Amino acid sequence: MIEENKEPTPLTAIGEFGLIETLTKNIELRNKSSVLGIGDDAAIIAASKLQRVVSTDMLIEGVHFDLLYTPLKHLGYKAVVVNLSDIYAMNAIPKQITVSIAVSNRMSIEALEEIYSGIYLACEIYNVDLVGGDTTSSLSGLVISVTAIGEAEEKKIVRRSGAKENDLICVTGDLGAAYMGLQILEREKAVFKDHNSIQPDFSGKDYILERQLKPEARKEIIEFLAEQKIMPTSMIDVSDGLSSELIHLAKSSGVGIQIYEEKLPIDVCTVTTADELQIDATIAALNGGEDYELLFTIPLEFHNQVKHKLGITIIGHVTDKSAGYHMVAKGSESMIPLTAQGWNHGA
Amino acid sequence: MIEENKEPTPLTAIGEFGLIETLTKNIELRNKSSVLGIGDDAAIIAASKLQRVVSTDMLIEGVHFDLLYTPLKHLGYKAVVVNLSDIYAMNAIPKQITVSIAVSNRMSIEALEEIYSGIYLACEIYNVDLVGGDTTSSLSGLVISVTAIGEAEEKKIVRRSGAKENDLICVTGDLGAAYMGLQILEREKAVFKDHNSIQPDFSGKDYILERQLKPEARKEIIEFLAEQKIMPTSMIDVSDGLSSELIHLAKSSGVGIQIYEEKLPIDVCTVTTADELQIDATIAALNGGEDYELLFTIPLEFHNQVKHKLGITIIGHVTDKSAGYHMVAKGSESMIPLTAQGWNHGA
Repeated sequence: MIEENKEPTPLTAIGEFGLIETLTKNIELRNKSSVLGIGDDAAIIAASKLQRVVSTDMLIEGVHFDLLYTPLKHLGYKAVVVNLSDIYAMNAIPKQITVSIAVSNRMSIEALEEIYSGIYLACEIYNVDLVGGDTTSSLSGLVISVTAIGEAEEKKIVRRSGAKENDLICVTGDLGAAYMGLQILEREKAVFKDHNSIQPDFSGKDYILERQLKPEARKEIIEFLAEQKIMPTSMIDVSDGLSSELIHLAKSSGVGIQIYEEKLPIDVCTVTTADELQIDATIAALNGGEDYELLFTIPLEFHNQVKHKLGITIIGHVTDKSAGYHMVAKGSESMIPLTAQGWNHGA
Repeated sequence: MIEENKEPTPLTAIGEFGLIETLTKNIELRNKSSVLGIGDDAAIIAASKLQRVVSTDMLIEGVHFDLLYTPLKHLGYKAVVVNLSDIYAMNAIPKQITVSIAVSNRMSIEALEEIYSGIYLACEIYNVDLVGGDTTSSLSGLVISVTAIGEAEEKKIVRRSGAKENDLICVTGDLGAAYMGLQILEREKAVFKDHNSIQPDFSGKDYILERQLKPEARKEIIEFLAEQKIMPTSMIDVSDGLSSELIHLAKSSGVGIQIYEEKLPIDVCTVTTADELQIDATIAALNGGEDYELLFTIPLEFHNQVKHKLGITIIGHVTDKSAGYHMVAKGSESMIPLTAQGWNHGA
């Protein structure tokens, strides 16, 4: 959206109301449940026999993202996706979002439009409606706060708390890639700081960079589970690292966890980058975070229905609470305790 | 909640999960529609025959508040109230909120608990449930983002767009006080900066300071309108100043506006402070903002039902669109055009 050879327009050139109008003028509401969008004191969502689920997340410049290497469009996209991921993790379908953004006056209207183009792209791809929000100035960095609202039949909603002993533990996609992508971005940033003339070297790193900068939420898994009539007993999205999420599930469900290191799905690009940076790929997979994959438990009987389907991997099983939370190490039978911060090697 | 003679506990002394647990351990859900609160990927809200309304606002340190003179408990309270005000302005009843907070690591746990004590107080007084949120760190200032969800029968929801010619224009409470409170706080801050030893002089200013620091939302007006079976034709809350809100209503409804300066409800403390600071009290009332009063239009027939009730003031009437937006000046018949930024004296 940024045209070349055109001076950026300062935000001060346009009032708050003009700004909101500029950013929201092309909105079309896709969902019947979105009765009224932006433009009143509040949005209106239709009455329904379905339950609503609500999730919210805030992204802060310098904490969750670095504008030096984060394309603004990707940032807008990611801010939406991380919230949708939480809605899917309830086995629900996201329908509406609200977005509040605080921007420094140094930011141009064109830059803000870039962020919104990413937000709208996510809305289109995930079929959700932007129905409300707030645009305000910030004295310091950029802040994006998104709230997502989804819907599901009461009996279809999956919490963290239903895992039962002997259930299979499944995870989608692969783990640790977003974390390794971040390491590469930080490495090249450090090089760039020292030697402005050196171009960053991202060759062969496309996959892990995309996982960090433009993650996706696992919409297709929720659709697959519905088609297959599989009801997970518990589910959570992997945002803070597999280990931490496993412990959330286990604590909420009052059960123990046993997973197998050799089963962890790790992409080859994650492994080679980890080697290059002398990081243990398993640690990246367990503690890296920002994977936005779904972690869920299912009764044993569904084994054949999920195995090798849509990139779902069975990584272990649910045990009795007294057995605690463990990973069986690769090539040995040693049990490594999992911790919320990850795992303690040799503990 | 801050005990004297006790060292504040740094946020780093406790992990993110510990922090959330500390801040949310005493939550009780009040509303039947709040099926599941904090502790899963998303909150769950019951299915209902009622429509839902959703509003969101973000408060940024240095833009919306100054921690030098804003008590943290009041700040938490205000962050909730300004969102509830939007829900009431739809003629709906707020039921749930989510709160995301970004704090600098310099802030203590006790300070964060103060903010939450204000949030919980607002929840108690307005009978809403805190069902979700996010607590994160900030490299710079404090950010609070609140999303409020309310409910109402479809036919009871009042938008901005239904005002009809000849309708009465009503406003609750009084106007300009929060703005004058802010002027006093800024004045004393400037004095304090120059002379650290001089104590601030807030004598006789309690009312306007409270209007600025601890505003209330007009719950009782919504209850009154329901009891009296009065359906406003349009409604909005006064957050950006009466003049700006009148124009929002008028534009959405495709009508004109005529109000009377002598009818504007202005508290005596606002008037005396305005005199003292050589500010026109009418300008404060029209443009000050942060009043969180309700501005609504009703058919003429309800005149006697609202007059002098619960501090409701009839300030004018709706005209044909071609008549524009005007205020009849006090002691004269001159028509002053209203603008979104307020009014142009003599324009």
